[in-house]
Amino acid sequence: MDSMRGMSEVDLQGYLAEARELALKEIQALVPRDEKARRALYDLILDYPLRDAKGLRPALCIAACRAQGGQLQAVTPSAAVLELYHNAFLIHDDIEDQSELRRGKPTLHLQHGVPIAVNVGDAMLALALQPLLDNTRLLGLGRSLRILQSVAHMVTLSVEGQALELDWIAARRWDLSDTDYCEMVIKKTGWYSFITPVLVGAIAAGAPSSAMARLADFARALSVGFQIQDDILNLEQGQGEYGKEFAGDLWEGKRTLILLHALREATPAERQAAESTLGRPRPRSAVADGAARLSSCMDELVAQGQLSPLGREALLSATRDAGSTPVKERSEVDQLLALIQKYGSLQYARTCAQRWVDDAAAALREWAAPLEDSQHLRFLFGVLNYVVARTR
Amino acid sequence: MDSMRGMSEVDLQGYLAEARELALKEIQALVPRDEKARRALYDLILDYPLRDAKGLRPALCIAACRAQGGQLQAVTPSAAVLELYHNAFLIHDDIEDQSELRRGKPTLHLQHGVPIAVNVGDAMLALALQPLLDNTRLLGLGRSLRILQSVAHMVTLSVEGQALELDWIAARRWDLSDTDYCEMVIKKTGWYSFITPVLVGAIAAGAPSSAMARLADFARALSVGFQIQDDILNLEQGQGEYGKEFAGDLWEGKRTLILLHALREATPAERQAAESTLGRPRPRSAVADGAARLSSCMDELVAQGQLSPLGREALLSATRDAGSTPVKERSEVDQLLALIQKYGSLQYARTCAQRWVDDAAAALREWAAPLEDSQHLRFLFGVLNYVVARTR
Repeated sequence: MDSMRGMSEVDLQGYLAEARELALKEIQALVPRDEKARRALYDLILDYPLRDAKGLRPALCIAACRAQGGQLQAVTPSAAVLELYHNAFLIHDDIEDQSELRRGKPTLHLQHGVPIAVNVGDAMLALALQPLLDNTRLLGLGRSLRILQSVAHMVTLSVEGQALELDWIAARRWDLSDTDYCEMVIKKTGWYSFITPVLVGAIAAGAPSSAMARLADFARALSVGFQIQDDILNLEQGQGEYGKEFAGDLWEGKRTLILLHALREATPAERQAAESTLGRPRPRSAVADGAARLSSCMDELVAQGQLSPLGREALLSATRDAGSTPVKERSEVDQLLALIQKYGSLQYARTCAQRWVDDAAAALREWAAPLEDSQHLRFLFGVLNYVVARTR
Repeated sequence: MDSMRGMSEVDLQGYLAEARELALKEIQALVPRDEKARRALYDLILDYPLRDAKGLRPALCIAACRAQGGQLQAVTPSAAVLELYHNAFLIHDDIEDQSELRRGKPTLHLQHGVPIAVNVGDAMLALALQPLLDNTRLLGLGRSLRILQSVAHMVTLSVEGQALELDWIAARRWDLSDTDYCEMVIKKTGWYSFITPVLVGAIAAGAPSSAMARLADFARALSVGFQIQDDILNLEQGQGEYGKEFAGDLWEGKRTLILLHALREATPAERQAAESTLGRPRPRSAVADGAARLSSCMDELVAQGQLSPLGREALLSATRDAGSTPVKERSEVDQLLALIQKYGSLQYARTCAQRWVDDAAAALREWAAPLEDSQHLRFLFGVLNYVVARTR
């Protein structure tokens, strides 16, 4: 079939942009105009969605629906809801991962504080319910309830995936296999970014249940390929185009396929040094600033004879205790990067990503076999390439 | 009618305990048994619900249903969902308000860190959806969808109320009227603690829409009375029985009816001093500990002649800069308490609470007029007294 050749990069970007635009319009219409709650809530709900995003989730949802003959208007509200969930998860994840950059700008909790950011995420989760209830008028009760079930399942698995990762961090676990990594990724991002979008699209189109399993296989495999590529980009791209901090994953101590590979390949001494670095938190701007100011003040006092060198030692050790645990340093993060290079872990990850995408392609071909050629199907095939070739 | 005399304190506590037990059983059955996600997620979901709570929300929901002839099994899952939402909001609110004690124990984010606490709250919001979807089997599609609508509305208003309060904090606003306070309270806690529980109970019982307005009036007025009493308890009770920190509201700089009254009555100088105190954050344990350790180290060094007194001054001012903003001190919080006493603000709040409860009673009497006497109706009348007479 013609569709299997996919789409040109330009057409694919156009499809994504259009889907994103549709979702954004729905989201904007969804946000209440309450004046009093605007500044602390409703303007902030639109902050992440209005940043330069890919629009992958609504596009997958719309394409899966329309490739099966469903109407655009049958799926747009659900596609928007998935984009809204995505952005709500990003806000809470950024708090949980202490991320500093999102889509090229400071994360919401850095801009407005953790309290407001937690609440804005909650507000988005709350607003996401209404269009799913309104679906009854659009799709009837049966399909609407199936979509609601599907979304409820998705949210549960997403928080489970997040919990797995947070538990690894709390337990300082690094003895993780690729299988552990994939399980976490599929739960944490696979369901809400890939599997549920295509399933919801299929339900909105009234597709038979028999078609669901292969569609889900496609999306599941694609999600792992996508996340591995995301981990690769984090170590290859500056923050300009990619929109996240360079090597932010290493600063955050994130379990990536790349890092887990390097740790497995490393000598015991290398591994011990790396785990010691990874176990320490990243420096936070305020703490680092404060410590630097105090230290330069001590230097001055010693130079003026107001403080003895011995006294400085005592004070430094008191502030180290006071300033809680020591933090990661740039030179140590550079050593992690060197380890990754030494053991070819980026190349290993690239090979893995391609294998997952090949699996996704096989499932998609099977699923698509009875369907007619359409730009929507071409988009889905086009996404296969896009996932590993993208640079942002 | 006999019901209007309410219930003895013992019977009321028994009714609450039974409702809480039913809700807890449903919640426990709802939590997945996934071994891997247990430690970082599913055990923690039960942490707040298993602490010693009142069970007010499930009891209100069950009583509103059964007083109108509804069956217990028709309402139990929804009652449990409301208790689950309540506990999810508590976890996120405790993070947002930087609270340290909840039901007599450290708050979840103090025990497990903000990342895990944010995620546990999200997981509870996710799990709450399933029983509402399963309601279709129990109540049919019509009532189930009305309950879902009602819950979606509730969550939206709750985050709006939270946003209003966070915005007052961010904008350092203290020029707030009792009306502002009541609007915030009704949104932030009134809907999810009182209004939605009784409305959902009524929907589950299949009560006519005409009966809803007065029932909502009852619950709305009751919620304000309840919150004012909560604010009073915070300044009257030690942490033992009440389960929250004494004067925690003042440490957090919470806008309460009591404090707003005192500020309105205060002289300009008193008001200025109070607002300056309230504008500063509470000391956090780690910061306070660190500063104390550093300061005692300096004292030692000065005594040993290793640090000049001038040097100590310089270092102290450097650490003050480094330790971000200055914090509230106990003597300043005591001055706020003195202001509240001077202007009789607790007595003022007590009078207001009683007026709201009187309004609630009038609405309840009207709503109850066509209903037959039952222990459920007696419970609802009993709650009127309980709300202002309670000590926890």
